[in-house]
Formats: sequence, C-alpha cells, structure tokens
Amino acid sequence: MNEIFVGVDLGATYIKTGCFDSNLKLLAKTSAPTQAEKDANVIIDNIAATIEQCITNAGLSITDVSAIGLGCPGPAKYKDGIIEAAPNLPTLNNVPIRQMLSGRLAGKTIVFENDANVACLGEFTTGAGKGINDMAFFTLGTGIGSGIIINGKLLTGPTGNSAELGHTIIYPNGRLCTCGQRGCAEAYASAANTAKRAVEAVTAGEKSSLKKTFDDNGEITCKDVFDHSKAGDELAKRITDETAEFLAILCVNVLHTAEPKRIVFAGGMIAAGDILLNRIKYFFDEHIWNLKAESVEICFAALGEDAGIIGAAALAKAKLK
Amino acid sequence: MNEIFVGVDLGATYIKTGCFDSNLKLLAKTSAPTQAEKDANVIIDNIAATIEQCITNAGLSITDVSAIGLGCPGPAKYKDGIIEAAPNLPTLNNVPIRQMLSGRLAGKTIVFENDANVACLGEFTTGAGKGINDMAFFTLGTGIGSGIIINGKLLTGPTGNSAELGHTIIYPNGRLCTCGQRGCAEAYASAANTAKRAVEAVTAGEKSSLKKTFDDNGEITCKDVFDHSKAGDELAKRITDETAEFLAILCVNVLHTAEPKRIVFAGGMIAAGDILLNRIKYFFDEHIWNLKAESVEICFAALGEDAGIIGAAALAKAKLK
Repeated sequence: MNEIFVGVDLGATYIKTGCFDSNLKLLAKTSAPTQAEKDANVIIDNIAATIEQCITNAGLSITDVSAIGLGCPGPAKYKDGIIEAAPNLPTLNNVPIRQMLSGRLAGKTIVFENDANVACLGEFTTGAGKGINDMAFFTLGTGIGSGIIINGKLLTGPTGNSAELGHTIIYPNGRLCTCGQRGCAEAYASAANTAKRAVEAVTAGEKSSLKKTFDDNGEITCKDVFDHSKAGDELAKRITDETAEFLAILCVNVLHTAEPKRIVFAGGMIAAGDILLNRIKYFFDEHIWNLKAESVEICFAALGEDAGIIGAAALAKAKLK
Repeated sequence: MNEIFVGVDLGATYIKTGCFDSNLKLLAKTSAPTQAEKDANVIIDNIAATIEQCITNAGLSITDVSAIGLGCPGPAKYKDGIIEAAPNLPTLNNVPIRQMLSGRLAGKTIVFENDANVACLGEFTTGAGKGINDMAFFTLGTGIGSGIIINGKLLTGPTGNSAELGHTIIYPNGRLCTCGQRGCAEAYASAANTAKRAVEAVTAGEKSSLKKTFDDNGEITCKDVFDHSKAGDELAKRITDETAEFLAILCVNVLHTAEPKRIVFAGGMIAAGDILLNRIKYFFDEHIWNLKAESVEICFAALGEDAGIIGAAALAKAKLK
C-alpha cells in the first residue's frame, strides 16, 4: 500500500498543512489561522482540524496516514515534543503539544522538529539541495532561522536545538538581539533588523529617499530598503550591502564549521533577487580565506512557502524508515 | 587475535607515535623531529621510521598492525590523503603522503585526518569526553584548532575540513589572520595573538609590568601574560580577560551550532589554569542568551599531549569496524 505522510508548518500566524504520497508528491494542502493569542487547547484543535481537512481534501482519512511531521518555532525540547520558549506562541510553551495532538489524531506518530530545520530538509529533499550531500540553509524573515545537512542527514543535536546560526555572535557586545544576546547575526541581517537599521539611519538625519517613506508610512520595511536600493538611493544601497556582508560572514562561518557544498537562502527577503544574492557572493569572496580555493555554491531556495510542509513530511517518512 | 593500532600525530616540529592494543591501551610511544625544512621524501621516511621504532618498542612487527591513523595539519584533502596548504609543512603540500607512507609500511591501511579533529577524538574516546555523546573541542596554541563530535561521531565533512572554528569570523573586517581572513577568532584568542595583543598594548605606551619583560626579552609570550595577570598587573588581566571573552563567544557560537553537552579546551594555553577557565565560564554566562537555560559544561582536556596519538589510533580502529 502507498504510504501517506502529513507535513505541518506551525507558524505564529498560520498553520500550513500538506498531505503527501510516499514519493513526497503533494496530494492536497490547507492552511488556517493559528490564533496564537488563544489558549493552547484552541491552537492544538486548530492544528488537528487543519490536518483533518487536508487529509479529507486528498480523499483520504486519518487511518490512511503513516506519520505526521510537525515543524515548530523554538527553542523547544524537540525530542520530548514540547515547545520551550517560542516568543510568538506564548500559550504553547511548556505544553506537551505532540502528545496532545497525537491524542486528537487517532494516536498517530508525530515527529517534532525546528521549523527552520524542517524547511532546510524540504529544500534538501526536493528543492535547492538536489545532487549534493552537505548543505547549509538560512531563512531570512523577522529572524534568521537555519539548518545544516551533513552527509545527507539533518543536524539536530541532542535536544534538537542545533543550527541556530542566527544567534551566533559576529560582533562581541554588539546590537541587542531579541534572544537577549548581543551581536547576533540576526540582530543585524534579518529582515526586521535590516529595516530597523534603515530607520535608525534616517532618524539620525542621513539623507535618503527612504526619509519620505518613513514620514509617509511611519515605518520602513526591508522591502522598502531593497526597492530604494534598486532605484539608486545611496543609503539604501549601503544598508543592503551591509546586510549582504553579514550574511556572507555567516556563509564563511558555516563553511568553516560544516563544510557545506551549497548554501541556500530562503524566506521573504530573497524576493529582493540579484541585488541581494550577487552582493552576498561578492562579500563571500571578499571575506573567505586564501589558504585554499573553496567551491561552495551560494543560491536561493526553490520551494517557496512549501519547503516547511515538504520537509515535515520528509521527516515523518524518514522516521518510519 | 588482539588487534594493534598505531596513532601518529604529525606536527611541524615533532612526529609523535603510539602503538595501542584493541582497547586503545598504550603499548609504546616514540617521537622524532619532523625536519619540516627537508624534502617530502625525507619527512615521510622520518614518519615511517618513527612508526617502525614504536612497533619494535612494543615487541611487535608491522605485520601485527591492523591500521594506522595519522593526524596532520590542514587544510588538506583528507579523504584523498593529501595535505593541501599547511603553512608549516611546505614540502609536504600536494604530495600523496598517505599513499607514499603506506608504500613504506607494507601497504598498511592509513586513515588520514585533521590534527585537531584527531585530538578531539582522543579526548572524546578516553579523556574529557567520558559519558557524553556531543562535544566541542578547541586546542589553543599558535593557532586555534577545533573538533566537533555529534552523536558520538567526529564531524569531518565531505573533504575533512569541517570544524575549523578558529577561522570563524567574530569581528567583520577585524584583525588580519594568517589565513588571509579578517576578524577570525584565532586572530584574537590564540596563544600567539594573545601575546601579540600584549606587545601592541605595551609598545603603544600602556603601563604594565610586561613592559620590563618586553624590554628584557624582546618579546612577550602568552605565558608571560597569564603570569603577570596572576601577579595582579592590570593590563595583563585585561588581555587575559579579552582572550577569555573571545573564547567564551566561540563557546556560545558552537553551542548554537552543534549543541555540545561539553566544550573541552586543550593545548599549551590551558597551563594558565583557573584564571583562564573561570573567566571563560564567566563570559559564557555573560554572553549566552536568556531564552532558555543551557546546561553545557566547559572544561579543560585530560590527556595532554597524548590526545593526538590516542585519537589517531581510535580513528584507525573505527575505520576497521
């Protein structure tokens, strides 16, 4: 019989779900609001209902499902199925979510993993990771998530909190990060902090076409920075370049750590296109050592928003092997 | 029959060799000058002679040996048995050293690995790694070598150049490293650079008891810095603290990368003792995030100079399994 796997990407805003066959071909997908402000029971009911709807849409029932993969924000006790301290899912923290969800879904096996790790596995399995065994992955959004594939396997670590490269420090005692550390890569190069650095520069009086955006909208988005950079604004170009340089340093550091053959960037920020990618490559060449030539490829992700549900299903499939 | 393994630690100054039984009990050890200034053939003859002497000292012959492990400085094509660009072994670079050495040793299997990785494996197998599955390792000498154990296995990467954490960048566009990069951890926190930072401060006119050392000896060593720090000199204390802080940041970064349960420091610098270890721990607590409590243990290595030969023998043993 053909095995069926469900992949779930639990975010603070939406629950996304996909139903897949044993070749990880997508049969159906659904999404629904998480309602993160509600009680844990409500959120878990929402997840269960979204999964059931997805299975129904695929013309199947819960008994047809072999296993479910669930990508969640962390930090978490992933091996125990418990989110520990996800800032945007406060009511779910320290709740036995895997156990409760399994109880609502006929006791099905649920594999629990970090959301960025799951997206990394998705890209590795059917996206930008084709043809290689060693890959690093960064997803650039409000924060910077990351994942590492070593010899074909996702690096998870003893509790599942490996590959939090957004929280590696690249400036000792630098900018304050939401995690409480100073100088994290995320505190400089995430979409939120790229926008924030632009706001700081504009409000400090630096000349820029972004000033009008800020005056009109009361904010500057990361997309604004990239758009004004494309239009030739000098400040926006500098902010874009700084972000690219920080990301290039993350590439240097992950190369010297796990030796990936490909480094894949994903997330909302990659909509910027070549003005971001080409500058990351440029700064990588500037910063990498000259002891020996490196052959790592830096590229953008291929799967868009589906990476999470595909990776979660791939994880469920791998669990049963 | 009891299997016999030989572990070799090839340094720029000495070749160290150990002969071990199948439980990695040391039967005999030898060492000899590398003669790094000589031709590759001479160096390889020196290695072969040192190994043969060691086996003879153990009352055995080359036919008794199951496999040989060899730890070498990098970067190298470890999987191919070729050193690529080791600055202190210029004549050995791009020479098929594994093949040539095997030819001189009855065609024995030789496993080739980075010297810091091998020392890491040695500590993990019979030293400071007891009772854990996930470990990070830093060896503090002229440079900073490192190794990572993930779920009981050495992280090597596709060509064996993983875990070069001394060359991760912690200050974009910072101090120039011998590798050609700027802002590497090694450019701040190695023994050589700790000493160099002290020389820079003294020659810039900062008051310190190290000034007399510099005037008398024409140099300041890392040991001088720690000795003067213990004696209460303010500049020496500041330089020591800065080194400890950089090393603590390496600990934060490797924790967020590979989630080790223990981080082990080795190499000449650990002779400094508690004034170094306690300050690394202090700065780790200062820099680590507050999202969740971390339980990583930071400690010094247990095996001293034997870590390399034990790790190399452990690698040879693992290869045959």
